This record gives sequence, structure tokens and C-alpha cells, in this order.
Amino acid sequence: MKRLRTIMALAVSVLFLAACGNLSNSTSSSGGATTSKSGTTLTGQTSNGDYEGVIKNGHYLTSKSRGVTNTEDSGNVYNVKSFESGMQNLSKKIYPPQSYVFQEGQYLDSSTVEDWLGRESSSNPTGLNPKKNKSTSPTSRNPIYIQALEEQDYMKQSGKSLKLSGMTIGIAVNSVDYYKKTQYGATYQTNISQAKGEAYAKDAAKTVLKRLRAKKALKDVPITIALYRQSSNDSLVGGTFFAYTQSKGNQTTINNWSTVNQKNYVLPVENGESGPKSADKTAFSNFKSQVTSFFPNLSGVTAQVHYENGSLTGMHVNVTTQFYSQTEITSFTQYLAQAAQKYLPAKVPADITVTSATGETQSYLSRSENGSKFQAHVFDSY
Amino acid sequence: MKRLRTIMALAVSVLFLAACGNLSNSTSSSGGATTSKSGTTLTGQTSNGDYEGVIKNGHYLTSKSRGVTNTEDSGNVYNVKSFESGMQNLSKKIYPPQSYVFQEGQYLDSSTVEDWLGRESSSNPTGLNPKKNKSTSPTSRNPIYIQALEEQDYMKQSGKSLKLSGMTIGIAVNSVDYYKKTQYGATYQTNISQAKGEAYAKDAAKTVLKRLRAKKALKDVPITIALYRQSSNDSLVGGTFFAYTQSKGNQTTINNWSTVNQKNYVLPVENGESGPKSADKTAFSNFKSQVTSFFPNLSGVTAQVHYENGSLTGMHVNVTTQFYSQTEITSFTQYLAQAAQKYLPAKVPADITVTSATGETQSYLSRSENGSKFQAHVFDSY
Repeated sequence: MKRLRTIMALAVSVLFLAACGNLSNSTSSSGGATTSKSGTTLTGQTSNGDYEGVIKNGHYLTSKSRGVTNTEDSGNVYNVKSFESGMQNLSKKIYPPQSYVFQEGQYLDSSTVEDWLGRESSSNPTGLNPKKNKSTSPTSRNPIYIQALEEQDYMKQSGKSLKLSGMTIGIAVNSVDYYKKTQYGATYQTNISQAKGEAYAKDAAKTVLKRLRAKKALKDVPITIALYRQSSNDSLVGGTFFAYTQSKGNQTTINNWSTVNQKNYVLPVENGESGPKSADKTAFSNFKSQVTSFFPNLSGVTAQVHYENGSLTGMHVNVTTQFYSQTEITSFTQYLAQAAQKYLPAKVPADITVTSATGETQSYLSRSENGSKFQAHVFDSY
Repeated sequence: MKRLRTIMALAVSVLFLAACGNLSNSTSSSGGATTSKSGTTLTGQTSNGDYEGVIKNGHYLTSKSRGVTNTEDSGNVYNVKSFESGMQNLSKKIYPPQSYVFQEGQYLDSSTVEDWLGRESSSNPTGLNPKKNKSTSPTSRNPIYIQALEEQDYMKQSGKSLKLSGMTIGIAVNSVDYYKKTQYGATYQTNISQAKGEAYAKDAAKTVLKRLRAKKALKDVPITIALYRQSSNDSLVGGTFFAYTQSKGNQTTINNWSTVNQKNYVLPVENGESGPKSADKTAFSNFKSQVTSFFPNLSGVTAQVHYENGSLTGMHVNVTTQFYSQTEITSFTQYLAQAAQKYLPAKVPADITVTSATGETQSYLSRSENGSKFQAHVFDSY
């Protein structure tokens, strides 16, 4: 179940360097990235919109359940990034980075999370996934619903130390459960409808909240539980969050859920697929035709687009082409900046990563939500 | 001799988006990146410090000798980037980007350059490299001196079109010539001293200038010839320019050469190697020890540093580490910004590329010469 999460070279979040956050000198006289060899310090902040992280005794305080997930090696890597970034983005509205420090989960350790992600059985009574039944047929077997569970801690300064002041638990539910009937056999799949996955996850969330409240340290802490639906393994974009609940300190039951309305698409849209807004599709299509004609050899141009409440809120564009020289990369990057400026939807955070046919990142451009122009960087060498 | 130039994910030149250059509307009513399907337009400019490039009939005007070089597939890819970027940087002092437009070489075609890069022989009278002698011994054979030759054109607006107003020819000389005695046999090497390579290249430059002046279109054009010494194949940094000459229009002989004093090093310096300034070494070493301790698992930290006239003028830092989550990448990137700010030499353009163990670009940071702070970008996905 453990695996090293391979990570894709795609793109978001331009962090503009800002002064150290207000907490950066809070817990150590040396402060910021100075990293004294003992005690707690913070990573510093490159953007007011991002959390500072916790450094303990000179090392980054990694998660107690680092690297644990149900995701198999062949799983969709987009889900992993999208799940973790999405949890943090959702948390920003509840635990704003101006007042809170981010800490990787310290209260659920690897073996706990591994047990929870397993099936319930006599040897694993805490498994959140259903008991095995006798069937191996895609429609009548009990699938694995809960694919990943992650904890994020949000801290506040308290005297000379940091105090846990909020927690976000992300629960990722499969849309498709991939399974094998025999160890090295063919892969089968059980589809899980939105309704069924949602009901199962909300039920599991109740159990999780009770277990967390049973821990002394978590008795009084605000806990956010966010539910995520994974995309299938053949998708070129990750899944989305669909609900969250906010539990005040001491509250052991979940009374209501807030809906999260997110959609992800890949552009260009394939025939027959439901897609994003027509204006956004057209804008991308115009951009793409400008870009593909730049070089005699064709460029591949795709994009991941993200919608919240029906509005486009971000896009990651990926351009693949064959370069012959460094000067071509520079010229192409300048051209992209102008074309993106002209054709891509305005007022939307966007970035463009330019990759060689062999997979190396050549340059990238980005524009923040309020930025009117693209900033560009060409990777070079001495 | 032809090969597709593979290109490394390393880093320079932060281009901050600026208004279109003064020439961007010069040759077409549509201007900039609008790319009318006929006529000449320009790429637009992301930085005042960079050249705009030429788009003809909707396509980028690629070099007539695109992809031609003596470099073998196993050659040092750093040389390729460093040679081309270096030519452009050198040209900026002579043909400033505010007044000139960059055009990929249009006057020397592939077969011409291929012939010139060959050995002189009865079947190849224009070969710039020496005739084969009978020896195959490393010290008594005639090595291949000239490894690459590249043309860059610098244009000025003239009415509705662009006029060739300057040219830079780069000649890259081997420091080591790699050769085989039999087709699939072992690789041997002939070392070429700085003095010998320089003398040979200056001689070849005379021939090249005469040949260019014999072309009607190049009779009156200012021509810059810049000489570059390649680094060896096992080097982790490219070579450097060591001389250039400026030939006015009509001038058919080379009277004098200007010295270019450039040095490249890789940090940390290996035992016994000559290195950069002690203060810069120490600064990097402090930075490195801060960074490597951040995660429980070790990070690899190296840098390419570039000196001009004895002063550090730029550094590309490369950090490789194993990540388990997107939140770790964000925290690490913020930490790097603070550590780089604190430890790396001030007032030097610097960038940092963070790469996973599997070679994917995770994030990068950069600071321009005048910038006091690092800007950061974390690659993400929906």
C-alpha cells in the first residue's frame, strides 16, 4: 500500500515572494529559514497566499503517515497532487495562512492510516472499507471505496510554541475500483456512482470524526473533513472535492455537509465528452491553433481546466514540441506569452509549461489571477 | 553529423514581461504575436533584455542550417545551450535588443555548414578541419578542431521589411576530440591545448570571413566572429567564449581580436580542481548544508557558476530530492527562497531548479541581478 508518489511536471500556484509571514519569528530567536539545530522554526513564506511550514530541530516535520495511500503504482498521479493541493486550498478559507501555520499530519501514523484504508475484517476491525463478500464480479462484489485518507494540521502561535488549532482530514473516494481476481491476473473494475461513493464517504467520515475525538489531543480542535472523488486511471486530470463539513471543538457528530462544486476538464475536449463552457473551449482552440503553427514540426497543446461554481478558476497548459536550439526556445516562449495574453480567457490564473519531446522542461510562463501579463522563464545552462 | 539537440532542464534568464518592443509593430499591421498568415511579424518580447524573433508567413523562421553540428549524440549537451545562449549574450553588447531583431541564420544552409565542419579533402575542399594524416595515435593524428559553427542574424527595420544589419558567427573549438579507430570500436581522445585551439580557430575565422564577404548579401554587413572552447564530455558545465572580433562592412581581413574572460565551474568543487572564488565557494557550501538537512532523506545540491572578468555573474543551482507529497514541495520551495536569500552571494542573478529523483521538475526559484528576492513557482496539477 505504501508507495513513493511519483509526481508530474505540471503547474499551478505562482508564489510571489513576500516578506516573511507574521509568524516566522514566533518560535525561535533565529526565526525564518535560519533553522537553528534545535527547537521549532518556520520555512518562511514566498507568498502571503501560502502557508509557512514547520521545521523541527533543523528538519522539516514530515507527516507521521508519510507516503501511505491505497493508490497503486499504476494509479493516476494527477489524483495525488490534486487531492493534496485541493485540501490545502480548501483549508485556506477556514484556517487563513495569515493566521495559521501548516504542519504535516502528526496525529495519525502510518499503521493507523494503513489499517483504516484496509477492508474491515476480524484481523482489521478499524478498516473503513467494506468486508469482502464472496463475489468477484464487478457489479456484485464490495469495492474499495476509500482510496486515500490524509491529515493536515493548522497551527497557531502560543507563547514560544505552536498549538494545534485546526485540522483538515481529506477522504478520497474511488470513482472506479481497480482489482484483480488472481495475484498477477487481469485488472477488472467496479464503477462507483457519485451517489454511492458520496453516501459511503459521509458514513466513513462520521466514524473518523468519532475516532479523532477519542484522542485526548483532538478533543477540542476544530476539524474539517473534506470529501474527494478520484478520477479514473485513464483520466488526464485529477478528481475534485464535492463536500466538506466543519466540526467545532468537542462536536462528535456531523450535522450537515456543505457542497463543493468543482469540475475538471482536459482540453481539447474529445468527441462526445461533456466539456467546459463553450467560450473557454473556443479561446483555447484559438490559442492552440496559433501555437501549433509556430514551428514547422507540430506542437502538442493540451490543458487542464478547473471550474468552481461554474466559473473557470484556473488552467494548466502543457506544450510539447521538438526544439533544435536554445534560441528557438527563447523565441517560442516570447511568442507564447503574447498568444496566451491575447487568446486565453482573461482574469484567470494560468500557466504554460513547455516540454521537449523527451520530457524535459524547457520553459514556463504564468499569470496570476490579478496579473495582466505572463511572466516567463527559459531554463538555460552555462 | 545532424542530430536533434537534446536539452537539459537547467536554468537562466528570467524574462520579466515588458511591453512589446519598439519593433513589434514594424512590419505588419497586425503586429506582435498576432501572426498574420502572410508577411513578416515578430514574436513579441517578454523582457526588454531579450530579442524579438522573426515569424514569416505564420511560422517561426528557423535556421537554414537547423540542427547541424559536429556534436555527437554522446557529446556534452551543456555545450550546445551554453554556446547558443553565449552567442546571443555577446551579440547584445554589439547589436542591442532595443534596436535589433533576432533572426535565426538564413545565409549558411545545412550542406554548407556540414561541409565546413568536415575535414578538408579532395571531395570536400571547403572543410575547415585539417586533412587526415596517417596516424591514429592521440598525439600525432590531426584532430577535429572545429566542432560547431553557427550563424545568428541581427535585423533592423527598413520601411515595411527587415534588413540584415549585423551577423554573429560562433565557432566552437574542441578541448578534447573524441574519435574511434574502427567504426564500433573504443573511443580515444586527442587533447587540444587552449593555445593550439585558439590559433587554429583564429585561422579558420579568417577563411570564414572571406567566404562570407564573397556573398553579395553579406558584402557590407557588420560581422562579429566569436570563438568558444567546448568543455569535455564528462564536464557538468559547458564551455566558454575566449575571443571575438568585430568586422565592419566591407572589411575582409581580421586585424585584431578582443579577449573574452569567462570561466565556468561546478559547485561543490571536487578535490584537486581549480575553483571559483573562496567566498563564493563558502556561500554555496553554507547554502547546501542548510538545504540538505531539510528532509530526512538527503538532497543533492549542485550549481553551475559563471564568471566574467573574475566576477561571479550568475549561478544555476540544481536540487534533487525525494518528495512524498505536494505539500512537502511547497514547504521546501518556501524554505529554499529564504535560505538562498540568506546564503547565496547577493546581487548575482541566480536560479534554483528542484527536481525529483525521477527527473521531473517540481519547482523553481529565480532572482534577477537587481532583484533582492527570489520568485518561486511550484508545478501543480488539477
